[in-house]
Amino acid sequence: MTTPSPFYLDCDTGIDDALALAYLLASPFACVKGIGTVSGNVSAAVGARNTLDLLALASSDDVPVALGAHDPLAGSFNGGAPWVHGENGIGGVSLPTAAASVAEESAAEMLVRLAHSYPGTLRVVAIGPLTNIAEALRLEPALPSLVVSVTVMGGAALAPGNITPVAEANIWHDPEAAALVLAADWDVTLVPLDVTMASVLEETHRQSLLASSSRVAQVLGEMLGYYFRFYEDIYGRPCSAMHDPLAAALAVGAVKASVAPVVRAAVDTSEGAGRGQTICDLRGLYAGYPPVAGARCRVVLSLEEDFAPHLVETLLTLERAGQPVPVG
Amino acid sequence: MTTPSPFYLDCDTGIDDALALAYLLASPFACVKGIGTVSGNVSAAVGARNTLDLLALASSDDVPVALGAHDPLAGSFNGGAPWVHGENGIGGVSLPTAAASVAEESAAEMLVRLAHSYPGTLRVVAIGPLTNIAEALRLEPALPSLVVSVTVMGGAALAPGNITPVAEANIWHDPEAAALVLAADWDVTLVPLDVTMASVLEETHRQSLLASSSRVAQVLGEMLGYYFRFYEDIYGRPCSAMHDPLAAALAVGAVKASVAPVVRAAVDTSEGAGRGQTICDLRGLYAGYPPVAGARCRVVLSLEEDFAPHLVETLLTLERAGQPVPVG
Repeated sequence: MTTPSPFYLDCDTGIDDALALAYLLASPFACVKGIGTVSGNVSAAVGARNTLDLLALASSDDVPVALGAHDPLAGSFNGGAPWVHGENGIGGVSLPTAAASVAEESAAEMLVRLAHSYPGTLRVVAIGPLTNIAEALRLEPALPSLVVSVTVMGGAALAPGNITPVAEANIWHDPEAAALVLAADWDVTLVPLDVTMASVLEETHRQSLLASSSRVAQVLGEMLGYYFRFYEDIYGRPCSAMHDPLAAALAVGAVKASVAPVVRAAVDTSEGAGRGQTICDLRGLYAGYPPVAGARCRVVLSLEEDFAPHLVETLLTLERAGQPVPVG
Repeated sequence: MTTPSPFYLDCDTGIDDALALAYLLASPFACVKGIGTVSGNVSAAVGARNTLDLLALASSDDVPVALGAHDPLAGSFNGGAPWVHGENGIGGVSLPTAAASVAEESAAEMLVRLAHSYPGTLRVVAIGPLTNIAEALRLEPALPSLVVSVTVMGGAALAPGNITPVAEANIWHDPEAAALVLAADWDVTLVPLDVTMASVLEETHRQSLLASSSRVAQVLGEMLGYYFRFYEDIYGRPCSAMHDPLAAALAVGAVKASVAPVVRAAVDTSEGAGRGQTICDLRGLYAGYPPVAGARCRVVLSLEEDFAPHLVETLLTLERAGQPVPVG
C-alpha cells in the first residue's frame, strides 16, 4: 500500500468542489493537510463555511481551513454563480454548522507553510480561481521547488468555454493570477473543460449516492439535484460535468490521462473578447504532439477510462468513514 | 443539368488558392465572373500575377482579375508566407506570363459591380484576408442583399490556429476586416481549420495530378510538392491540408457539411494574445447545437465525405479543357 500523499486543496466550494473534497477525503492515496478557499462559485467566506461544514459531516474537522482571497488580483469578486451552485453554493442543501472556524493564517500562508512542512511531497490541487496560488508564489518565490505537483481545474483548450465562448470560469475569474501560475517555474497539470465536460455524472450515479448510508454521500447526491438542473440545459438531460473531482483524481493518480500533451500555455489578460481564455498551444495535434522545448503545462485532453464509475465507487467508501445516517 | 452559378472569387494566390481557382474553373456548377486579389499568402500584386498566369494556362483568360488591397485595414502587409507557398507564391513553379493584365477597377469595385450584374445569384468565395470584402461592404452597404452566399475560408473554431495557437492566417492578417464581414447583415459560411486540416491531400493524389495530360493539373501537382514539404512538419508525412479548395467546393454545393451549426461569431481585434482569433460560440456542442436566435455564421465542422477524392476527380476533368501538354 502506498503512503498517502499530503495535499493542499484550494477551492471555492461549490457543488463540484464538495465532490472533489469528499473524493480526496475518501481516497486512500491522499491525506488532506489543509484547505484554502477563494471567491469563485461563491465568495471565499461562503466557500470556507461550506468546507468546514462538509469536513465536520465527514468527521474530518481536524483538517484546517484557511480563508483566501475575496477579490481577484485585478478588479473585484463578481458575486459567483448561484444559478449553477445555488445561493449557498451547495445547491440549497442545509448542512449542520460545524463548530470549527477558519484558521488564523490566510490560504496563501497555509500553502506556503505546508510546502515547507512537506518539502518535495506536497501536492497542490487548485479547483477555484488561482488568486491564492498566485499570492503564495509572491509570498514564497521558492514555492515551485517545494511542491511536487500542481493540478489545476481550469481552461478550455480545444473545447468551448463556459463563461464566454473561449473562457472557462476558474481562469476567467482571475486571469492575472492564472497567468502568474502558468508562468511560474513549475510543471502544471491543467484539467480543462475538454475532459471535465466529457466526464458526465448521470442520474443513476446520483441515485447511488442518495442510497448510501453515508450522510456525506447523501448530501452530495442532494446537491447534485440542483447541479443537474443547471446542466440539463447544456446536455439536454439531467446529469452534470465533473470538473473539480476529476482534477482531484488526476492529482491523486487514481485516474490516468490518455492524451495529455505538455505544451506552452498562457492566459489572455487583455480586455478583448478573448479575456480569460487559457491559450494552450496545441498546434502539434496533427503530428501526435511532438515534444515542445521549454513547455511546462500538461493539458489533459482525454482519459484512459470513464471517470464517473471511479468517482462514485470512491465516494461510496465514505459509508465506512462518515457519520451513520439515522435509520427511520 | 443545373445552370452554373456566377461566382466572385477573392484570393491571395497561393498554392491552395491555385487549387481552389482550378476547382472552380473545372466545376460544372460554377462560372467565375471575376477574381479579386488581396495580400495574404503573397502580396495582392503577386497574387494577381499568379492568378492571371493560371487563368491563361487554363484557357480562361476571359475571366477578369482585379487588384485588391495591398495592406489590411489596420497596419500593413507583413510579407506573406514564403515558407509555405514559396517566394513566388506558387511553390517556385514558373508559369508562362499571361498576356492579360489586371482590370482597371479594384477588387472591391469588381465585387460590387458583379453583385449588381447578378443580383440574388452571385456567390462570393473569399479565401484570403477579408480586406476587399470589407471594402466592398463600405462601397455598397446594400451588398448583403445582393449576393446569395458568402463562403469564407478562415478561422479555427475548436481546432488550433495556424499563426498563433488560436488564430488562423486569413483572419489574423486582417482581423478588423473579418470583424466587419462577420458583423454585416448576411449569412456567412465559415470554413475553418477544423475541417480544412482534416481534409488531407496525399502523395497518391499529387501523383494523379502530375500524371494528368492537363498542364494545369500538372503545375498544381508541382506546386503541391512545395506545399507538402511545409506540411510534412505538421502531419509527419508528405501531404497537405486543403483549405481554399474546400471552401470553393462547399460554396459550389458539391461537398456537403455534416456538422455545421449556425452560431454567433466574432473576431478578436484586441492587441492581446487572442488577436486574430475567430471566436465562434460553440457552447451548444453538448446539446447538439440547438438553434441560436440571431446567429448568422454557419461554421463547418465536419463533412459528409472525404474531400480529397472529389477534388482530384474534379481537377482531372481539366484534361478535357486545358491546354494539352507537349508529348516528348
